[in-house]
Amino acid sequence: MVKKRTVEVCLSPALTHLYDLSNKLVVVTDVLRATSAMCVALEAGADHIIPVNSVEESLALKAEGYIAAAERNGKVVEGFEFGNSPLSYLKINLKGKKLAITTTNGTKAISMAAHAPDLITGAFLNLKAVADYVKKSPLDVVIICAGWKDNVNLEDSLFAGALIESIAGSCKSTCDAGLMTQALYQEAKSDLKDVIRRSSHFVRLSKLGIEEDINYCLQLNKINTVPVLKDGKLVAHSRI
Amino acid sequence: MVKKRTVEVCLSPALTHLYDLSNKLVVVTDVLRATSAMCVALEAGADHIIPVNSVEESLALKAEGYIAAAERNGKVVEGFEFGNSPLSYLKINLKGKKLAITTTNGTKAISMAAHAPDLITGAFLNLKAVADYVKKSPLDVVIICAGWKDNVNLEDSLFAGALIESIAGSCKSTCDAGLMTQALYQEAKSDLKDVIRRSSHFVRLSKLGIEEDINYCLQLNKINTVPVLKDGKLVAHSRI
Repeated sequence: MVKKRTVEVCLSPALTHLYDLSNKLVVVTDVLRATSAMCVALEAGADHIIPVNSVEESLALKAEGYIAAAERNGKVVEGFEFGNSPLSYLKINLKGKKLAITTTNGTKAISMAAHAPDLITGAFLNLKAVADYVKKSPLDVVIICAGWKDNVNLEDSLFAGALIESIAGSCKSTCDAGLMTQALYQEAKSDLKDVIRRSSHFVRLSKLGIEEDINYCLQLNKINTVPVLKDGKLVAHSRI
Repeated sequence: MVKKRTVEVCLSPALTHLYDLSNKLVVVTDVLRATSAMCVALEAGADHIIPVNSVEESLALKAEGYIAAAERNGKVVEGFEFGNSPLSYLKINLKGKKLAITTTNGTKAISMAAHAPDLITGAFLNLKAVADYVKKSPLDVVIICAGWKDNVNLEDSLFAGALIESIAGSCKSTCDAGLMTQALYQEAKSDLKDVIRRSSHFVRLSKLGIEEDINYCLQLNKINTVPVLKDGKLVAHSRI
C-alpha cells in the first residue's frame, strides 16, 4: 500500500509561520472572494494575474498595461474599476489580458506562502480541479485559509474541509485543524449557503449589497481552471 | 429584552493580539491538562497557584516554599515532582499549600491575557461553575484556547463550543470561530472521548502513558471551583 501524503490546515495567515512550507504544495483559499475571482479570470482567458500586496503596486502595473484591481474591506478601492468580485470579471473580455490584483486577505496569504515550491489557489468554484491537481502532486499539502484580517473565518475553513474530503484517497489529514474543518464540512455540505449565511463575513459583505456575488462563489465545480503561481504570476494550470 | 453580551473565541495564543481584552472577561482553557489541573488543585484546598512562564521562575518560587510544577512537551520537567497531571495533585494534601506552575501552553496563554480586567481558567471538569461565573459577569467574553505550541487543537476548541452553548442565554457568539466551535461541540458532545481520541494531542499524550489522566480531564462538572487571576495568582472564586 502506498503511504498517503499528509494534508494540514492553517486556519489564519497569522499562523503561517507554524508550517514548514519548504517542500509543500500550498493551496491558498479566500472563498469570498479573491480566489474565486482568480479562477474565474483565468478561465475567462486572462493571460496571467499578478497578486500584489499594495494598492500602489497594483497602480504601478496599470501603467504597464495591466488591468488593475484593488479591494479593501470588501469594497473596490477608489480610483479602481475592479475589486475582487468574480461576477465583475465575467462582464468584460479578458482574453489575453494581464491582471494585477491586491485584496484584503487573499493576496496577503499568497505572498506569505510564495516561497513554497508549488502554490495554487482554490475556491468552491474550482474544488474538483484543485483536488485533481493535488492528487497528482508528489508533495505533502498545506491549505492556508486567508481568513478576515487574520481572524479565522467560516467559508475558508469549510473549503479546507471540502478539499480534505475530496483528496482523502491520496492525503491524510494530520492536524486538529484538519479534523475540525472536515467535521464542519460534513455538517454543512448539504446546505452550504445556509451555513455561510450565518458567518461574520456574509453579514459584513451583504451590507455591501453583493449577495449575488456570494451566491456565485458558493457554487461547486463550475470552473476547471487551477491558478498556479509561477515566478510571481498566477497562470492557468492547463496552459502551463 | 436585555441585550446579550458577546462571546468570541480565540483559537490560538498566536491570535491573541486580534482581540481587545481591555474590557473583557477572559476564559483561558487548556483542557489537556493545565487548566484541568488548576481547578483540581484549588478545589483540593491549595491556597493559590502562581502561573509562571519559565522553569526557572517555578524553581525560584520553590525556594520560597512553593510546591513547584513544570511541564514541557507533555512530560514533567526533570528535577520536578509535579507537571500538569490533575491526578498527581489528587495524591497529595494540598490544603493551604502554594503552587507555582509552568506548562507548555496553558500558562503561556494566561500570561498573554493577564492584562484583561478579569481572567478565569476553564476545563470540562469545571464547565458548569465557569458558565455560572460568566453568566454573572457584566463583561463581554473572550475564550482563549491554549492550543499546542500555537497550533489550534481539538479539545480546547470543543471546550470553547461547550462553554458557548452553556452561556447561550446570556452571551451571543459574534465570530466565526465561535460558530465553528459550537458546531463542533454539537457534533461531538454525545461522545466527547471518542472524538478527542482522534486528536493529535491525544495521540501525542497517549504515547506518554497518561490515558487515565486524559479520561479524567474529559469528565464534565466534577469540580465546582473557578480559578480566578488576582494580582498574578490564581485563587478559588469561592474563597475571594
